[in-house]
Amino acid sequence: MKKFIDSPASLLDTSLQGFAKAHADIVQLNTQPNFIYRKQSRQGKVALISGGGSGHEPLHSGFVGVGMLDAACPGQIFTSPTPDQMLMAAQAVDGGSGVLFIVKNYAGDVMNFEMAAEMLEGPNATVLVNDDVSLPKDHPIGRRGVAGTTLVEKIVGAAAEAGYDLAACKTLGDKVVQATASMGVALTSCTVPALGHPTFTLADDEIEMGVGIHGERGRETTKLVSASEIVEQLATHIQDELNPQSGQKVLLHVNGFGGTPLVELHLIYELAWQYWQKRGLLIERCLVGNFTTSLDMAGCSLTLTLLDEEMLRLWDAPVNTAALRWGI
Amino acid sequence: MKKFIDSPASLLDTSLQGFAKAHADIVQLNTQPNFIYRKQSRQGKVALISGGGSGHEPLHSGFVGVGMLDAACPGQIFTSPTPDQMLMAAQAVDGGSGVLFIVKNYAGDVMNFEMAAEMLEGPNATVLVNDDVSLPKDHPIGRRGVAGTTLVEKIVGAAAEAGYDLAACKTLGDKVVQATASMGVALTSCTVPALGHPTFTLADDEIEMGVGIHGERGRETTKLVSASEIVEQLATHIQDELNPQSGQKVLLHVNGFGGTPLVELHLIYELAWQYWQKRGLLIERCLVGNFTTSLDMAGCSLTLTLLDEEMLRLWDAPVNTAALRWGI
Repeated sequence: MKKFIDSPASLLDTSLQGFAKAHADIVQLNTQPNFIYRKQSRQGKVALISGGGSGHEPLHSGFVGVGMLDAACPGQIFTSPTPDQMLMAAQAVDGGSGVLFIVKNYAGDVMNFEMAAEMLEGPNATVLVNDDVSLPKDHPIGRRGVAGTTLVEKIVGAAAEAGYDLAACKTLGDKVVQATASMGVALTSCTVPALGHPTFTLADDEIEMGVGIHGERGRETTKLVSASEIVEQLATHIQDELNPQSGQKVLLHVNGFGGTPLVELHLIYELAWQYWQKRGLLIERCLVGNFTTSLDMAGCSLTLTLLDEEMLRLWDAPVNTAALRWGI
Repeated sequence: MKKFIDSPASLLDTSLQGFAKAHADIVQLNTQPNFIYRKQSRQGKVALISGGGSGHEPLHSGFVGVGMLDAACPGQIFTSPTPDQMLMAAQAVDGGSGVLFIVKNYAGDVMNFEMAAEMLEGPNATVLVNDDVSLPKDHPIGRRGVAGTTLVEKIVGAAAEAGYDLAACKTLGDKVVQATASMGVALTSCTVPALGHPTFTLADDEIEMGVGIHGERGRETTKLVSASEIVEQLATHIQDELNPQSGQKVLLHVNGFGGTPLVELHLIYELAWQYWQKRGLLIERCLVGNFTTSLDMAGCSLTLTLLDEEMLRLWDAPVNTAALRWGI
């Protein structure tokens, strides 16, 4: 394993120190337990909190700031944060209008966020993100939360900033999740520092369709094909799921898993744009880059969100975080 | 080779189409020859043009926009752009106050930008970036231009936006180059699509100190050591070069080469911050992330720029590009 680390045990804590210093105009770091929170909290606003295993950066710590999250709770690499992280983060950022947890659908995350929600005095609600259509709808543990999470956090973050109350933020979050579908493909595995070797292996001519963001095996291991064929496959699964009408406004998100260069991600965006343009969709907004990563995994995912005017307006609203910044 | 491509020959053109669509609010794409240029050009302003081989994204196309570049000329992967690209880009964005070319010091880039400058009617000047201290000062082809280029383009871009004339932009650019030193390290090679295999090989326990951004071999191939030891080595070379006084204000840039996760880059930032903080420097500004990449190479570089008040003010000035955005 080749990584920039002193030890797997110290990686996250030292990295969080660096992150907080690099973005000291926007965020603060709490230690013991770890959470990143907004430098200027706002009274009277619903507080948005997310979190999950580390290794997906900039998700979620890079989304803390005006117009998006109030706090992010990082677990160890690919490991759920503990309930005390979410509880203390909630107590730190609660502005008196309740707390909305945005949780990716993984058993450990769901359980620990639920425990925090139970311990928390005061109103709170949870939006569960499960946008990964590579698993069937009736999968026993449900579908995983993947790159669509960024879009949920941006849109609901703007709503909270605009004064939506807790119930309205929860309703909106569920609506965005319903309108969003994602699917990814891996060209290589990632390597978790504490493990020291790749999570899975692929032959030189193989790819993993429907891979999860922790390197979970996906829908099938197939032969490496052209970028056009890969996009056709991913997009078709998403298209079949959302079944949008011609003329539908959408947001198209091409997410890199960390190890794939931007020159390839923009190629993927062009091919996906052509796929949906041919089907009459109006690609009104987009996001291309590494936002929900899997450490050093080479690969990418497509996410499509069906937009209504409310979601479009909230997407465009100002945001000032380490990883997303516009209008401010 | 595992990449998202249809063919190495079509990768760049299709990717540029995707890039231009994804950032249509900021840039436009000219084809035949390829260049990316600002959507809203400004009369009366010095026009800044950069370029070079592709594969370093977001450099340079991601830096086109208000407060930074007026145009970027992408060559094929790791291949110099041709003089007609720079010439036509200059004619497209010249606002009547002359053209400043910002050129990384590579023989092909220097030659082709020089030819464009000769063919161009009207005033122009060139800033040569050669911030890589891994090569000795008296190296026969000079030192390479690496991640410091981003800082030159940001600071001079703000100056041009603020109304500096051509001579003042050139003087400022040379000053930033003089005040800037960088050094990088690779954990792995990158793979150029047209080549199909890694540019160089490293054993599982080896790293390349002083690597170039095209995978050029560096100062030495050494054993993999801890992140702290790597930072100590890189930072010491930079420190010895710039020899800053205690109390000096600096900008510290940790640049990822593409294949290294943010969690590691923030760890590197923390360690570099500690190195220079111990030496009494005032780390007033920073930039951490993948800005001057080498396709899928795992690795990173450190860049330090000694700031004066003018450079600090220009760094903080508004910028609105695909990859750097603040204050707008």
